[in-house]
Amino acid sequence: MKTLLLNKEQVGSLICMREVIGTVEEAYKAFNSNQVIQPDYIGIDLPSPRGDIDFKLGYYKANEVISMKASSGGFINNPTTYGVPSGMGTILLFDARTCALICVMDGSLITGLRTGAAGAVSVKVLARKDAKKITSIGTGNQARMQIRAISEVMKIEEIHAWDSTRETLAKFKADIESEFGIPVIMANSKKDAVEQADILITTTRGKGPLVEAAWVKPGTHIVAIGTDTQGKQELDPELFRNAKIVNDSIEQCIEKGETWHPLVKNIIAKSDIHAEIGEILLGKKAGRENDEEITIFDSTGMAIQDNTTSNRIYRNAIEHDIGSIFEFLKG
Amino acid sequence: MKTLLLNKEQVGSLICMREVIGTVEEAYKAFNSNQVIQPDYIGIDLPSPRGDIDFKLGYYKANEVISMKASSGGFINNPTTYGVPSGMGTILLFDARTCALICVMDGSLITGLRTGAAGAVSVKVLARKDAKKITSIGTGNQARMQIRAISEVMKIEEIHAWDSTRETLAKFKADIESEFGIPVIMANSKKDAVEQADILITTTRGKGPLVEAAWVKPGTHIVAIGTDTQGKQELDPELFRNAKIVNDSIEQCIEKGETWHPLVKNIIAKSDIHAEIGEILLGKKAGRENDEEITIFDSTGMAIQDNTTSNRIYRNAIEHDIGSIFEFLKG
Repeated sequence: MKTLLLNKEQVGSLICMREVIGTVEEAYKAFNSNQVIQPDYIGIDLPSPRGDIDFKLGYYKANEVISMKASSGGFINNPTTYGVPSGMGTILLFDARTCALICVMDGSLITGLRTGAAGAVSVKVLARKDAKKITSIGTGNQARMQIRAISEVMKIEEIHAWDSTRETLAKFKADIESEFGIPVIMANSKKDAVEQADILITTTRGKGPLVEAAWVKPGTHIVAIGTDTQGKQELDPELFRNAKIVNDSIEQCIEKGETWHPLVKNIIAKSDIHAEIGEILLGKKAGRENDEEITIFDSTGMAIQDNTTSNRIYRNAIEHDIGSIFEFLKG
Repeated sequence: MKTLLLNKEQVGSLICMREVIGTVEEAYKAFNSNQVIQPDYIGIDLPSPRGDIDFKLGYYKANEVISMKASSGGFINNPTTYGVPSGMGTILLFDARTCALICVMDGSLITGLRTGAAGAVSVKVLARKDAKKITSIGTGNQARMQIRAISEVMKIEEIHAWDSTRETLAKFKADIESEFGIPVIMANSKKDAVEQADILITTTRGKGPLVEAAWVKPGTHIVAIGTDTQGKQELDPELFRNAKIVNDSIEQCIEKGETWHPLVKNIIAKSDIHAEIGEILLGKKAGRENDEEITIFDSTGMAIQDNTTSNRIYRNAIEHDIGSIFEFLKG
């Protein structure tokens, strides 16, 4: 049994965002085609100032790969005290025909990439065809990933950005303008930014003031990224009352996504959720149907996205003969 | 971040059974000292003739290590069709202070070792001091591990062994006599073997006829290994009625261990379980109290055993400068 080892640099060199959009689309379709087994994830919370680590397991029948992603975050003292990032990741890939370990790769980049790609996949089927302006509430790493991914599927003419920290916002403007050549307008208020949006992306920590329903104009597509546990919230739950609600996984979103909030407030019923995005991609349910409706894509993240994305990286590595081999069974 | 890689041969060379008995004893004590977090394990069952893979996660506060063991089994066509074992394993160790990945080691040997050691730890506190004769029902790899471990904690004078396959039994006799110099008597029936026991070890697949209560003489210590899921059973549940019942984890044993059977038949109540073995090792509960009582140790296996054992292997490797370094975060 030969196991391929890939470090962070190699992982980064082996995949581009365009490919990740493809692997995430494949993952969503697989999830709604009875091709996926994703047990509940398990994790351990460490006491503050440490964070947590969780383990997400996914099996995709079509590629016969089982992936397990260990992912840590929130270890705020790591960089200064230990010289390592505040969050790290490792992905194991097993050949599901034998359960042999075929690859161990650094997993630092994949969550960011596949989450960025999720927004772009939703834009393809839920944003207006004439959408030009993006509003980004939150200007951290994931906001950059969303811009990177969405710019692969549409032409972004301008970005209205808002962040509670002016300095972070200015850095975002500089980075995006230099990387993509898209003008970034630093909004004076969250309201000012949201009112401009054809597509609204929320990537905050989910602890700040909400995006109010009255600010969102008809025809807006909302990509709700930041809320992936029950303590977080980014959107006024009233926004869901008349919106077309799409989830990555209904089971996950009603438990820990943005969709949980309007449900517990009885603003919507579970039956008001229009679709899982894989159903739309498969043509089983409609995407956007007119230029007036507000669409919300609630993304909580699924193991199968890690599976298809890391498997593509593994296949690319084999094809280009990149990485090191280690024989764990030697002896 | 530097990650140590250890292959199967290195793992085997870095630990001896005497040390594993120590790490398993440490694990049991830790479990009953509020030092352990062990989430439920997650797994995937593949369709026949494939088997399953599961992922067991454990955090031990005292060593500040989080372990994750991926363990597969039952892939019966692996050796002939794919040239790999029917079961394989991989262990990841994380430094719980940062969640940096400090080690990836082959995990093929550890489950066998720590399960063997479990029996020996139970013998120390639950077998009669004058115990000399061991009966082994089941003569596979784990039966050998039990003999190897128990011979570290007592002098075994003879072994009475039984297996449904005579050929397997003869092989066991030859192997044990050559490795340990202990005479092995091949029993003509399960009853004949059990009647001889000071210590009775059951390590079958849990699908055959049961060990009947009437065969077990007073003063016997029973090490019940084979039953780790609800479909398996090795002992007549009547054996539990008047025995001193000890579990590794009550929560696990009442759900999927041998202890589950007498509970569902109302032969015992949960309150009839005398102790978890860690409580005995810590002196919080009594071990064997006289030479007449029948003691049963029901072992279902815990992630914390993998944690303490693989951490010892890792520490030994660092001390002896064995293994390869890989930098996953490079780039």
